[in-house]
Amino acid sequence: MHVRRVRVVQDVLDANATIARANRADFDRAGVVVINFMSAPGAGKTTLLERLLERLETLPDSPRVGVLEGDVQGSLDADRLARFHDVPVTQINTDPGFGGECHLDANMVRSALPSLPLTEIDLLLVENVGNLVCPAEFRIGEDHRVMVCAVTEGEDKPIKYPLMFRTCELVAINKIDLLPHLDFAMDQFERNLDAVHPGVERMRVSARTGEGVDAWVSWILGALERQRVRA
Amino acid sequence: MHVRRVRVVQDVLDANATIARANRADFDRAGVVVINFMSAPGAGKTTLLERLLERLETLPDSPRVGVLEGDVQGSLDADRLARFHDVPVTQINTDPGFGGECHLDANMVRSALPSLPLTEIDLLLVENVGNLVCPAEFRIGEDHRVMVCAVTEGEDKPIKYPLMFRTCELVAINKIDLLPHLDFAMDQFERNLDAVHPGVERMRVSARTGEGVDAWVSWILGALERQRVRA
Repeated sequence: MHVRRVRVVQDVLDANATIARANRADFDRAGVVVINFMSAPGAGKTTLLERLLERLETLPDSPRVGVLEGDVQGSLDADRLARFHDVPVTQINTDPGFGGECHLDANMVRSALPSLPLTEIDLLLVENVGNLVCPAEFRIGEDHRVMVCAVTEGEDKPIKYPLMFRTCELVAINKIDLLPHLDFAMDQFERNLDAVHPGVERMRVSARTGEGVDAWVSWILGALERQRVRA
Repeated sequence: MHVRRVRVVQDVLDANATIARANRADFDRAGVVVINFMSAPGAGKTTLLERLLERLETLPDSPRVGVLEGDVQGSLDADRLARFHDVPVTQINTDPGFGGECHLDANMVRSALPSLPLTEIDLLLVENVGNLVCPAEFRIGEDHRVMVCAVTEGEDKPIKYPLMFRTCELVAINKIDLLPHLDFAMDQFERNLDAVHPGVERMRVSARTGEGVDAWVSWILGALERQRVRA
């Protein structure tokens, strides 16, 4: 008889990829577009999500949105989003894991699936744990990866955390309202970005002043539209 | 015969603690005080270390300093420090590990010991990988843990990353030159800090303008002096 060989899953990242594909299949069946938002701590992910939710609420044909919040402990951001926006928010805390996990992984997201109203939403916004290393290594079943990088973090971040910048489709360069008060060279940052991920899409935003937020919202709506066209 | 029971090391953190104690014994034998600097990416650790090295160089009885740089990839910070300061700098890259480790651990530091001129220095400054989660979990054999937290990161960070703020002895609150341009409530930040680490020592600094740097340098010199008195 012909022997069928099955490659044994080799490590934790293989196992993660397997579960991520299962998540993705569930999201696809429900017709939900999933965006994984990643950044360093304090880059402004939550505030950018707030600006996004505010704008989406004003649209005539607003997509139905859900939020999945990942934090080591607590639910500060989830509470903040749930308080002011009429969207279902689910919190994952990573602290029961090994000393507090520094990232979401596919299995954590899978364990949250029963709490997510997948049949009632079109778009799931996942806010990952603030960290520029491990979240990039663990796919969770997302359709898109968006990074937020604040200009206050310095021009060198793409060079120091290349995998993060390499595995995202969009880099939102946030806190540009602070540029006049910083020694931040945008051209050097963009050269560093192109060195690790040539030509990756990027946009300059200020979650605080609202500058650039229209383009940011359009990008998200475009991702949703492209998915609708494919489906 | 009486049976001697040995507790088996239980997990990766136990193994790390064992190696950290071995590192610490080697540092103690050489009379080197080791400070582990931790922060989120872009909080300003390297710039604060530069300010420190500049001041130390002007002292009549300057301590002999070495630097150990931890990064996922590259040696940007190590090159920066070595270019302008007459100190031995050793680089650890964590990327040969599991997808790029997000922290230094005791074994990485141990593997760097042969490259460190321990008999020629009094003070070893270790700049950890920028991350607010895992570096807090892995002791490396340090005498002191110092955190740098930038006001641009927001008031909520102690609540979101409690272990990091709980396991350090000093929190340097950096980038205070930007306070007039931010919606950062220092009193709220300090309340959050006290909620997770009541009364922890803290100081306000600006690596950019030099404000508060004298107190920062004094703290480091004090740590060195306390060790000399103990020895």
